[in-house]
Amino acid sequence: MADQRRAGVVGLGLIGGSLGLDLQALGWEVQGLVHREVTAERALARGLAHQVSTNPSCLSGCDLVILALPIARLLEPDSALVDALPSTAVVTDVGSVKAPVLKVWSRLHPRFVASHPMAGTAEAGVEAGFSGLFRGRPWIATPDSQTDPLALQLIQNLAESLGSIWTVAAAAQHDQAVALISHVPVLVSAALLRAVGDERDPGIRQLAMELASSGFADTSRVGGGNPELGVAMASGNRDAVLKGLAAYRWSLEQLEDAVMQQNWEQLGQELTRTQSLRPDFLSRADQDTP
Amino acid sequence: MADQRRAGVVGLGLIGGSLGLDLQALGWEVQGLVHREVTAERALARGLAHQVSTNPSCLSGCDLVILALPIARLLEPDSALVDALPSTAVVTDVGSVKAPVLKVWSRLHPRFVASHPMAGTAEAGVEAGFSGLFRGRPWIATPDSQTDPLALQLIQNLAESLGSIWTVAAAAQHDQAVALISHVPVLVSAALLRAVGDERDPGIRQLAMELASSGFADTSRVGGGNPELGVAMASGNRDAVLKGLAAYRWSLEQLEDAVMQQNWEQLGQELTRTQSLRPDFLSRADQDTP
Repeated sequence: MADQRRAGVVGLGLIGGSLGLDLQALGWEVQGLVHREVTAERALARGLAHQVSTNPSCLSGCDLVILALPIARLLEPDSALVDALPSTAVVTDVGSVKAPVLKVWSRLHPRFVASHPMAGTAEAGVEAGFSGLFRGRPWIATPDSQTDPLALQLIQNLAESLGSIWTVAAAAQHDQAVALISHVPVLVSAALLRAVGDERDPGIRQLAMELASSGFADTSRVGGGNPELGVAMASGNRDAVLKGLAAYRWSLEQLEDAVMQQNWEQLGQELTRTQSLRPDFLSRADQDTP
Repeated sequence: MADQRRAGVVGLGLIGGSLGLDLQALGWEVQGLVHREVTAERALARGLAHQVSTNPSCLSGCDLVILALPIARLLEPDSALVDALPSTAVVTDVGSVKAPVLKVWSRLHPRFVASHPMAGTAEAGVEAGFSGLFRGRPWIATPDSQTDPLALQLIQNLAESLGSIWTVAAAAQHDQAVALISHVPVLVSAALLRAVGDERDPGIRQLAMELASSGFADTSRVGGGNPELGVAMASGNRDAVLKGLAAYRWSLEQLEDAVMQQNWEQLGQELTRTQSLRPDFLSRADQDTP
């Protein structure tokens, strides 16, 4: 990437702020855009961008604009923001759901590239960003037939220069995969906490709390996470989440049937299969920060 | 506990072997009993007991006998073992399911105390035991009206001298609590792995594997564990597991309903509640080894 090209980063939370730091390190001139003046001051103090404004017109002259906004704001963007995007700039987002974003934004900007760097959660605030967040993490783009190939290439170069692992997929496939490995687990895990919390016998409930071990702690972790984020995932990716939940329910019912029928041989075969399945999902997860 | 009292440990896997080491450190004379000669030799080489035999008659003269056996062998014990137990000895077990064990053993021995030290998993073999396993872990006894109070007191003294946290509960409450926080999570977690593994679109399946993060790794961990242990839990504690699964299904269906109805306010309230519930289950889990 040539030095002194100009990048706009809209939103300076965990993802946007980290991008601001990394882009500066790569030699980009970085312009931040945030909603509130107090955030702008703090972002500037943290050095997340060279300049930070609350006025969308600051994006004029940018070659690249990264929309590091929550899904809800991506799906119903401020018209002032849309109007301020230079038509020649490459525009990308970082949303965790891709089909609805692509649908909205492919109409709003000719050089939009739908993408999803999978690194932590959005909306963690102006204090959250740090350099190197994207190193070793997947960065998925979900182009369609309308996507500008040169714009896509620029995002790929960017992701790879940040150390991300580049992947291209159809938006619908991305959304279903993310539902299965990220959004459905939140509900599956939350349902476990609810089931124990709703146990009517106070003696059993108390004992369950005393006896809960690391296995329960692991299985219930994502269900005890940020509620706003859980709602954003479920609402933003509703169709895929419902499809994933239906598959999950079917899967659980088959295990329950084996227990009901006392078919221990079948249960053993199923658990042997899940034991052998799990390592396929761990090559990346092992590299994650906790 | 007086020095040179004689304890028999039946089975020298993770739990039995660790008990053998700790009992020796407390000054007990420890007699191990195992099934196979090769195990006896290895246990002796590891110093898990002072003597190790394959002949149940070695238990004569023991003041205390700990049955560190898998549930299946506890529920259908060798008659030679039962016959060899001194009638004056205090006898306890370490099984993870208590009502069925108590039912069988309260008939077999007058000084039986049903107990469950919650430290790791059984059946991990003669190489698994280590000293200090029980420190800071719960040790639950489930006496009934027939249980000898002096025998119960001896097991409490033992557990506390090993650093365990002593708890007394009814066997049925124990079994339901353990189903909720240990056995049901295995099936809930395994069902998640199956749902992803059974996804028909190979592109989605492949992407799910590439994108799985630490959240998926956590939620799927216990479902990818030892299949034999999973079957032993489900079969040994079947009634409580089925009851727990029914409560779990109901809990998940309510979350699914909120997504289906697009009732994001309700989903947000539910996830806020699960977020606040989780810390109640973590005071102990934080102390666990991974």
